[in-house]
Amino acid sequence: MLHAVILAGGGGTRLWPLSTAARPKQYLPLTGQKSILEMTVERASSFVPLDRIWIVTTQEQMPLVEALGTGVPSENILREPMGRNTAPCIGLASVRLRERDQDATMLVLPADHLIRDVDAFQSCVNTAVEHTEAEGGLVTFGITPSRPETGYGYIHAAAEPGPSGAYTVVAFKEKPDAATALQFVKSGDYFWNSGMFVWKAATILDMFASCLPTHHSILSTIGAVGDGDARFAELYGSMEAISIDYGILEHADNVAMVRGDFDWSDVGGFEELQRISEKDEEGNHVEGHVLLEGVTDSYVKSSDPRPVAVIGLEGVTVVVNEDGILISRTTESQKAKLASQWSNENAGKK
Amino acid sequence: MLHAVILAGGGGTRLWPLSTAARPKQYLPLTGQKSILEMTVERASSFVPLDRIWIVTTQEQMPLVEALGTGVPSENILREPMGRNTAPCIGLASVRLRERDQDATMLVLPADHLIRDVDAFQSCVNTAVEHTEAEGGLVTFGITPSRPETGYGYIHAAAEPGPSGAYTVVAFKEKPDAATALQFVKSGDYFWNSGMFVWKAATILDMFASCLPTHHSILSTIGAVGDGDARFAELYGSMEAISIDYGILEHADNVAMVRGDFDWSDVGGFEELQRISEKDEEGNHVEGHVLLEGVTDSYVKSSDPRPVAVIGLEGVTVVVNEDGILISRTTESQKAKLASQWSNENAGKK
Repeated sequence: MLHAVILAGGGGTRLWPLSTAARPKQYLPLTGQKSILEMTVERASSFVPLDRIWIVTTQEQMPLVEALGTGVPSENILREPMGRNTAPCIGLASVRLRERDQDATMLVLPADHLIRDVDAFQSCVNTAVEHTEAEGGLVTFGITPSRPETGYGYIHAAAEPGPSGAYTVVAFKEKPDAATALQFVKSGDYFWNSGMFVWKAATILDMFASCLPTHHSILSTIGAVGDGDARFAELYGSMEAISIDYGILEHADNVAMVRGDFDWSDVGGFEELQRISEKDEEGNHVEGHVLLEGVTDSYVKSSDPRPVAVIGLEGVTVVVNEDGILISRTTESQKAKLASQWSNENAGKK
Repeated sequence: MLHAVILAGGGGTRLWPLSTAARPKQYLPLTGQKSILEMTVERASSFVPLDRIWIVTTQEQMPLVEALGTGVPSENILREPMGRNTAPCIGLASVRLRERDQDATMLVLPADHLIRDVDAFQSCVNTAVEHTEAEGGLVTFGITPSRPETGYGYIHAAAEPGPSGAYTVVAFKEKPDAATALQFVKSGDYFWNSGMFVWKAATILDMFASCLPTHHSILSTIGAVGDGDARFAELYGSMEAISIDYGILEHADNVAMVRGDFDWSDVGGFEELQRISEKDEEGNHVEGHVLLEGVTDSYVKSSDPRPVAVIGLEGVTVVVNEDGILISRTTESQKAKLASQWSNENAGKK
């Protein structure tokens, strides 16, 4: 049966001070009333019942997940004792899923993605599930690029789909430079690597055995050990931190890609947030007690009771909240990460 | 004898949120440890004893003046019941000075000017005093312009000084456009109208009689009425609000100009504040718990305990304090005035 596994342990710092180590972006209502983790659960629950939706998060973030009240049963919330990137996390979920459902098929979804067209998304999931039923192997989701984005990895897919509707993956490509990204988009055979996957739990565990044998061996032991067991943290921590892409997908020859033509965003920074947020005629997104005067194409969000005035600027991001104040040219706002680090280092000096 | 009369009743809003209606700029330590009113008192006290230094302020600002502890005797602190621009204010001071010293000479100094070279300034004051002793009339201070500033009025002076060293004033000029300002600076005969003056109290009162007879008549009555008298506020308020420039100087034919070649600033806005503030190699002035990344030629001042990060911007002004947050392109920061108004209007809605 199909299970949705939502990976919610990330700790994005590129949206500082909206997101912080104590409040990662998946718990924030970035574009509306609900957090993007809740929206991800809702999206999955439109075609998977709640008792087959799983959330994997870190011990630290457990209270944040519980506070949301997503409706996901508590026995489906898995805790990583510490972050170890996606391979150990997906390995843990695979082991636990198989304990419950020997023939489980997993839809792996990062918690921090926004997808508006749920029907188109569900149709892709169906194609992926049918592909794994018919041909086995691993399925990844490639998003048709809407611009030559240099912030994402790309998937080079075969020109034509196979009988299942999925495409053979020719190669995975690292984040490209601008010229390469433009070539990719023009060619029509390159897709954004979304980090969403479909496979059977048994299949991915077999792939761990062949590509990451040490991880596989530890995961086998973890299978016999409850989350509450004292050895659990030690075992989990002994797995090398590695992504599922580097650890398995890039070495596998059984990877297919389902093509997604829907709006998709990983809300990876303020440029992306500005792109997907509601804007007025001047291209400004404004929240809070804010005065704009001669400002265009800007994202200004304040939760502060004090007045915030922004004057004579274009393409800037301004965020004021209880954790800090960010004022950035939006095209350079990836450096908010530095501010997040600096802020943590100086936390004691306030 | 020479008395210094410091006009401290202004309520600048162009430095919002540094300055506010409740905390005008003359009470702020804009460029160091001391407020600019204190620095103005100190500058005057280097050649006028404290008991001949006077401060004219509004009823509202009285506690701010008292809190500074300038050393100016309390009987020398005159209160305007309300702001009525400079003519009534100078008129009031003239009346009170003459009560104390029939032959008083007044050096009129706005409280919010910065002058670094006290010796050069004092030498100009000496020239002005000698001119009034020898020839009577009114003396204004013209500052040799260091740039084609469009934010100041100009004084067109005769090409050569008279025997006293002072120049005959040909005309007063309103704030010019950029092309005219450039012509003014090139000509060498145009000077910034600083708003500093020297004259005898008796002379300026005679000028009130001829140029502003209604004011003169009210001032005569005020002369017989103490500050504590119930009629004082009513009388003062009945004078039309008008500047000494418009009301008297521009109609007078006995105005001379002393030329000032010293650094002078009225700290009229953030462009000026940035110009006169200490800056690092990147041209940034930075105060507070602030991270700059790829920022140049900017003024960033925070008194907030939260971290403030500014990224990828040039020529911006950022001020964070308990009254508000300003983020402005520095060349457009005169619009902080709008923010100040908006902030006051919305004060109840916080």
